[in-house]
Amino acid sequence: MTSHRFVPDRYYNVIGSLPPALHVADGDTIITETLDAAGYDKDDVNRISGPNPMNGPIFVEGAEPGDSLKVEILTMVPTRDTGFTRSVVAGNVVDPRDVRGLPESRKVFWDIDRKALTARLAEPVSGLEAFTLPLAPMIGCFGVAPSLGQAISTATSGEFGGNMDYRLLGPGATVWFPVSASGALFFLGDCHAVQGDGEIVGTGIETTFEVTVRLSVEKKRTIIWPRGETADDIFTIGNARPLDQALQHATSEMLRWLETDYGLDRTAASHLLGQVVRYDVGNVFDPAYTMACRVSKSWLKRR
Amino acid sequence: MTSHRFVPDRYYNVIGSLPPALHVADGDTIITETLDAAGYDKDDVNRISGPNPMNGPIFVEGAEPGDSLKVEILTMVPTRDTGFTRSVVAGNVVDPRDVRGLPESRKVFWDIDRKALTARLAEPVSGLEAFTLPLAPMIGCFGVAPSLGQAISTATSGEFGGNMDYRLLGPGATVWFPVSASGALFFLGDCHAVQGDGEIVGTGIETTFEVTVRLSVEKKRTIIWPRGETADDIFTIGNARPLDQALQHATSEMLRWLETDYGLDRTAASHLLGQVVRYDVGNVFDPAYTMACRVSKSWLKRR
Amino acid sequence: MTSHRFVPDRYYNVIGSLPPALHVADGDTIITETLDAAGYDKDDVNRISGPNPMNGPIFVEGAEPGDSLKVEILTMVPTRDTGFTRSVVAGNVVDPRDVRGLPESRKVFWDIDRKALTARLAEPVSGLEAFTLPLAPMIGCFGVAPSLGQAISTATSGEFGGNMDYRLLGPGATVWFPVSASGALFFLGDCHAVQGDGEIVGTGIETTFEVTVRLSVEKKRTIIWPRGETADDIFTIGNARPLDQALQHATSEMLRWLETDYGLDRTAASHLLGQVVRYDVGNVFDPAYTMACRVSKSWLKRR
Amino acid sequence: MTSHRFVPDRYYNVIGSLPPALHVADGDTIITETLDAAGYDKDDVNRISGPNPMNGPIFVEGAEPGDSLKVEILTMVPTRDTGFTRSVVAGNVVDPRDVRGLPESRKVFWDIDRKALTARLAEPVSGLEAFTLPLAPMIGCFGVAPSLGQAISTATSGEFGGNMDYRLLGPGATVWFPVSASGALFFLGDCHAVQGDGEIVGTGIETTFEVTVRLSVEKKRTIIWPRGETADDIFTIGNARPLDQALQHATSEMLRWLETDYGLDRTAASHLLGQVVRYDVGNVFDPAYTMACRVSKSWLKRR
Repeated sequence: MTSHRFVPDRYYNVIGSLPPALHVADGDTIITETLDAAGYDKDDVNRISGPNPMNGPIFVEGAEPGDSLKVEILTMVPTRDTGFTRSVVAGNVVDPRDVRGLPESRKVFWDIDRKALTARLAEPVSGLEAFTLPLAPMIGCFGVAPSLGQAISTATSGEFGGNMDYRLLGPGATVWFPVSASGALFFLGDCHAVQGDGEIVGTGIETTFEVTVRLSVEKKRTIIWPRGETADDIFTIGNARPLDQALQHATSEMLRWLETDYGLDRTAASHLLGQVVRYDVGNVFDPAYTMACRVSKSWLKRR
Repeated sequence: MTSHRFVPDRYYNVIGSLPPALHVADGDTIITETLDAAGYDKDDVNRISGPNPMNGPIFVEGAEPGDSLKVEILTMVPTRDTGFTRSVVAGNVVDPRDVRGLPESRKVFWDIDRKALTARLAEPVSGLEAFTLPLAPMIGCFGVAPSLGQAISTATSGEFGGNMDYRLLGPGATVWFPVSASGALFFLGDCHAVQGDGEIVGTGIETTFEVTVRLSVEKKRTIIWPRGETADDIFTIGNARPLDQALQHATSEMLRWLETDYGLDRTAASHLLGQVVRYDVGNVFDPAYTMACRVSKSWLKRR
Repeated sequence: MTSHRFVPDRYYNVIGSLPPALHVADGDTIITETLDAAGYDKDDVNRISGPNPMNGPIFVEGAEPGDSLKVEILTMVPTRDTGFTRSVVAGNVVDPRDVRGLPESRKVFWDIDRKALTARLAEPVSGLEAFTLPLAPMIGCFGVAPSLGQAISTATSGEFGGNMDYRLLGPGATVWFPVSASGALFFLGDCHAVQGDGEIVGTGIETTFEVTVRLSVEKKRTIIWPRGETADDIFTIGNARPLDQALQHATSEMLRWLETDYGLDRTAASHLLGQVVRYDVGNVFDPAYTMACRVSKSWLKRR
Repeated sequence: MTSHRFVPDRYYNVIGSLPPALHVADGDTIITETLDAAGYDKDDVNRISGPNPMNGPIFVEGAEPGDSLKVEILTMVPTRDTGFTRSVVAGNVVDPRDVRGLPESRKVFWDIDRKALTARLAEPVSGLEAFTLPLAPMIGCFGVAPSLGQAISTATSGEFGGNMDYRLLGPGATVWFPVSASGALFFLGDCHAVQGDGEIVGTGIETTFEVTVRLSVEKKRTIIWPRGETADDIFTIGNARPLDQALQHATSEMLRWLETDYGLDRTAASHLLGQVVRYDVGNVFDPAYTMACRVSKSWLKRR
């Protein structure tokens, strides 16, 4: 297995079938530095406009449609002392009658303490004087080229992954994406230092990271929606609106997974999920919302 | 403060402006035994048909429209050795194309070990031989008479509470409901021994409980949607379809709460929620879905 | 068949199992004068507050759960020279980002010319100087007592009918409601002189009418959602959010109707609907939205 | 103005920033023959697989981001004696509980009488023996390259147009698309001989056409969503799920149009739309649903 340091010479605002910027072998590790969601690098130099510039595409040898691309997020190291958020919850997460009562949203800066691994608002806000957040890094947007040669804005997401903004997609997590193009064509970017459920202000704490991932091909493991795993849980991800539909996608994918890998037919899986499933909201800000269907590994025995 | 043992002589399938079965003073404690969701009591005698028969209404002296009724769930003691669930996830939680692949759902029984406080399927299911669940009791359906003299089926929910099926509504939790009728007219029932997020098989483990609650009136504390508190968190609850709208209700209510009780204006509340909010799915089975907006108390200082 | 002139001595803001104000025989005709949506009568005297005060309940002899109540809307005669609307589209019918750009909505009056059968804004509005609308009367809110003894706000709707705000429910139309209580317990009110699709300002032109309806019982004709018929079309009505779900209810009901009354199995009905169905938006303002599934009678032969 | 006969040598399953197949001047007319949705040509030869192969892209000189591309649909002449539909309504348009009762959907053929301009099922279906439909041709999928260099599947739609499946998009209609790429890059295909609202069997009567369109650039006419016009109406189109959101997009776009071109501010536009708007369902089958907001020209005077 080789380790590659990938320094893009250009960035993309779409995930799609574009000319590979890097070729790697199955199982290789990639270290790369991401821009923030607005296209600024670790030195605060604007390199491209938003949304969510991507590093990639990375062509993984051997990946073909019908396979899965396994992405292990090994490390995420913040590379800048500042991050930004938007200042006000999005209009679509409050009752329509309450939209008018929201102030205008603006860009707000955070100080990131890379030694203490904390973040705090750069300017004091009344009532939040003591608001210091431990960093909880995650990748906001990543995935593989979608089907049919599509190229899709990094503002949104789909079966191929994309801008899912799901908190659990951080260091230690493994994610599988359905391969639709030769070489999978992996992209990543838009990393967050911290983010609440739903990304309801339209951002996490957006900053730059050095990210290390390992990419492997799982041949003939055909999945429809992204799947993932942490030390504690397995989960599936649905991306759609309304949340109801995202939840349907995620639940259907979990039923398939429980059957093929854990030997649970629909009834057994229903007994399990009915009493122990957890649903997590990824984002409710992007054009497609994200819902994860999660099950603690403590209930599962892979066969 | 008095403690009342409330033995209903009839049960209701609606929550509404009905003749009070019990009058209590502000701050009184009520101990009552609930039927299961299908109307069976602790001796497995069917007392009424479903859905979700209610004990109530309880008239709380001093409660008037514009006030809140505070409900402290003090204890929930299971009173039967059996519970039931439905056997298959509901059609509305999977992709429409996958509905056809679901087996027919049927009633399935569980053994409840009231000493060990665990539950397991009464009949073995392949792959779930070791599936023993710790009890996590919760009230599926409770609330107060809705506005306008309405009486609403216990199959659904609304601003008045009702069939929310939210996991955190168990012993130790406190819930506030908006009072719309004199005396509040509190109802409860439909308790679950365990339930996953979403109540996606259409039930938790449905059984009978002895429930102890304390009811208090908070004068002039006008709220729109139910609010709650556990040892760790505060939360607000929205009930509607799609989930997107339930989430809007809950988020709007949380913004109001953070402003009045915690001194956080919309911007400060946005900074807080944006990075630390958690959304929990109550149910995605009933006519109205339920979403909770939850914040860890560790971030909050009540003023 | 008898004709009754029904003068309510009280009005209701709910539709439910309340004491009958009038008993009629199967096939009787009722003439009654309705208040406007805000509770004002034809003399502009406020008789009750909103929402949508109802005349009723009318107990129809012989109607039992499992039957349908057939409501023929025979005539609707406006009884006042004024109507009102709200002045601005509701926040929920525009993109959330556009809510802030809407002016505050206020009550606006219209002059109704009962001879010419037209309506126009009482105060001139720039750009609408020539805006004179032909009256197109319709009943905004009507239906029968819902199941389980419920009493549901006239702000919303359900299987029992209610506040559907569908343009085609005017003179000449026939509507069937599913009976859930003995005597059906029919209510009506909230009539509109004109209304666009969706009732997107939150009102039609709200005024008072003298309405004549004939009520008949169709024994053992069990339906789930309201059905209707005009000179040209048959239609079914679904009430829910999101519109997607309202559409599902209406389409499912139409498939049942086409099978039982027109001899079209699911495939034949699909061929028909696939190429000729029309969907009409009733309202997208109330808590439950309304969608009608409509088929021209020219394609149908009742068997 | 030149007239071009455009014979593609390849077809696309996406709409996006691809190499132009034809360059035309502002105002030119294009005559082109489309494949059916499954990629069969007028001789029933399969030329490409689905979904919805497109003729294009056509580069229109002078079109730049911020402009609108005006598409006049001049004629649509069917070029084959057969069409196809799917045989059963889609699972997502009925209640989840009713999905199981639907037969399996299969491809069904129709005979198209190009002299009489009618279509009928090739194989008799019980109850539909006399079911002969007048042709009502329309373009199912057309539009311009979306923003950011995206290329999006012709199975879906967005601000750029795409697979909207809206009945009114036929001969005589004019449509405007927001230009996001130099030359606009226009695509079209997927024409239907007939289609009901919602495209609820997943197809109209899919066949091949010779289509004539005129393409013109309207400089600096910046729109967000597609707009259209027939002899009788103007309309705006929103593409999204749920239908509620599609309706929001369409309504917001109509408010903008009424202001800039008809001099109606938000209040005047609200008075107009509130009482006369019509909403039409395009499709409720594709990943993005389509809703049109339509106003009769009889109410409007362009300033």
